[in-house]
Amino acid sequence: MTNTLLILPGDGIGPEVMAEVTRIIDWFGARRGLKFDVSEDLVGGAAYDVHGVPLADATMARAQEVDAVLLGAVGGPKYDALDFSVKPERGLLRLRKEMDLFANLRPAQCFDALADFSSLKRDVVSGLDIMIVRELTSGVYFGEPRGIFEEKDERVGINTQRYTESEIDRVARAAFELARKRGNKVCSMEKANVMESGILWREVVQRVHDADYPDVELSHMYADAGGMQLCRWPKQFDVIVTDNLFGDLLSDVAAMLTGSLGMLPSASLGAPMANGRPKALYEPVHGSAPDIAGQGKANPCACILSFAMALRYSFDRGDEATRLERAVEKVLADGVRTADLMQAEGATPVSTSGMGDAILAAL
Amino acid sequence: MTNTLLILPGDGIGPEVMAEVTRIIDWFGARRGLKFDVSEDLVGGAAYDVHGVPLADATMARAQEVDAVLLGAVGGPKYDALDFSVKPERGLLRLRKEMDLFANLRPAQCFDALADFSSLKRDVVSGLDIMIVRELTSGVYFGEPRGIFEEKDERVGINTQRYTESEIDRVARAAFELARKRGNKVCSMEKANVMESGILWREVVQRVHDADYPDVELSHMYADAGGMQLCRWPKQFDVIVTDNLFGDLLSDVAAMLTGSLGMLPSASLGAPMANGRPKALYEPVHGSAPDIAGQGKANPCACILSFAMALRYSFDRGDEATRLERAVEKVLADGVRTADLMQAEGATPVSTSGMGDAILAAL
Ligand SMILES: CC(C)[C@H](C(=O)O)[C@@H](O)C(=O)O
Ligand SMILES: CC(C)[C@H](C(=O)O)[C@@H](O)C(=O)O
Repeated sequence: MTNTLLILPGDGIGPEVMAEVTRIIDWFGARRGLKFDVSEDLVGGAAYDVHGVPLADATMARAQEVDAVLLGAVGGPKYDALDFSVKPERGLLRLRKEMDLFANLRPAQCFDALADFSSLKRDVVSGLDIMIVRELTSGVYFGEPRGIFEEKDERVGINTQRYTESEIDRVARAAFELARKRGNKVCSMEKANVMESGILWREVVQRVHDADYPDVELSHMYADAGGMQLCRWPKQFDVIVTDNLFGDLLSDVAAMLTGSLGMLPSASLGAPMANGRPKALYEPVHGSAPDIAGQGKANPCACILSFAMALRYSFDRGDEATRLERAVEKVLADGVRTADLMQAEGATPVSTSGMGDAILAAL
Repeated sequence: MTNTLLILPGDGIGPEVMAEVTRIIDWFGARRGLKFDVSEDLVGGAAYDVHGVPLADATMARAQEVDAVLLGAVGGPKYDALDFSVKPERGLLRLRKEMDLFANLRPAQCFDALADFSSLKRDVVSGLDIMIVRELTSGVYFGEPRGIFEEKDERVGINTQRYTESEIDRVARAAFELARKRGNKVCSMEKANVMESGILWREVVQRVHDADYPDVELSHMYADAGGMQLCRWPKQFDVIVTDNLFGDLLSDVAAMLTGSLGMLPSASLGAPMANGRPKALYEPVHGSAPDIAGQGKANPCACILSFAMALRYSFDRGDEATRLERAVEKVLADGVRTADLMQAEGATPVSTSGMGDAILAAL
């Protein structure tokens, strides 16, 4: 079976972090006999500049065919004034929606060598390893009606939060499956005390649990309390499952807690394709960081670790994923640091490609 | 002018913390000549037990007449299985909606004596003093259509996020006015990159700023980035203005950061009444804490400080509000601690009423 990859570097620091990923991919081909058939294309502002849309139809079609899409980042001030429908983010949202990538896996992991970067106390975050499973193809991100409408004498902005039972069911299953391979605990978060969509969410998650995953420990929490508990004692969690919008906020909060924002990858998974592999897109949690783009300052680790997730979830090579993750950990433990990680004494400052060099050496 | 107050102790620890507030109110009458005409009534589960609804019409009518409503807390496991329409929370939401309390002021303040309780590092939170202004009468909490509907073969849960220009306009003004009396800085948070309601939000906040508050420093942030920044370096903020749902989450995260959850008050303000005072409801940020209810363990400070906010915003007695706030700070500095605050060596443990005693003595 060939392994196909579509690389979409995108905007800002996207291209420079992706360049390091490409070197890692080549290393796996040359040294581990793990060959990838790689194509590259445009997304976000970069696509808009060429095609007038943030994702061309041909790119969308290619994304549907490959085993995995690797995305850098989208967006930047240059595109701020664009119409909503062609903003860089719409390219990413189109990929998520049309590939039906309903389960967004966002690990919030604290790297031991970086625990002091957190604004939280060391004992609160060291060793932290939680997995947020965010629903990614529905909810208020995509619900209709939506828009800005005239009404009486003024305008009104409307978005619709909408979840069907089957949408909740499938993401709940993804969370329970993951939990079984980890700490066997799922906490589901919504606002069932004020939103009917949250009531349905809670009910369906409970039903899936009782029917097919009674061995997994399940709890429910209101999303506001969940945000609080993440800040108070994040280690109480193993897997968190939540909707698109709450997941957006809560996973960012969780990511920041670790102090390792430049380190965090994500995977967005859909249904299995004909070859048995899931539709999949991998991207770092960080954004396009236009302020430091093109200066060799960006940390490529999050994007490299996103490729590690691809090895695990798309290519069923958990062994090679672990190899890559260990290499990144070793480099950090050795004190190698990109600019975002430079606080400690005695660390070795490196550029984006210097970090790539160090990881290749560690491999 | 008489000063009228409606006290709604509610559920869980509500009644016991409110009992301490009542003693403080009496002290102001006896010692500072500041008399209040106080009535008391039911809300939440306590109202449901008697009336079959979480807020009786007569209570609603009284709330509309008084200068200020003081609320303890609502909710508890006893009421978990109730129908959505009569859950304890609906009583609180009805008060907010029918009194049209559009500006929810949630200070996130770190008390110096308590900085070590935070899960964040001391230098990140000590001296923290931010004010979150949360829109409270609209958005996804109240938008129609809402409910759980049958559709094809399955059910779908729907809620509607909805903001009109005038709803955004008035809460933005409240935030700018507050900023002028504080650090003169407002940060507005939404998800304008994915939600049209966020686009309208950003546009209206900017317009109000440019027209009437050009002297206030205004910035915009996506709500997920806002959550991150709150965890990373909360002192960058002065006033944050955001919608009902984002405000719910972000204010809880901010509250938890301070380490002083049992200390944090809130004010919910509406339009001025005939006597010039705003419609107003004051309540602690913490919930009903059913697990410790009735044991004399609850910390009454948040509820007492909510009364201090009433002195400032409803009765224009900033001087007396400051007096009460200073008394609370002194008691904390003296090491007096309810159970939630017991971690440090050498502190003096007190019960709920013991804390009331100490504050009265400090006054
Ligand atoms: C870029 C933006 C559209 C996106 C989102 O809101 O989902 C981002 O914040 C994320 O979390 O991946
Ligand atoms: C009790 C609940 C309805 C309420 C809310 O969601 O607004 C609470 O969380 C709050 O923040 O005041």
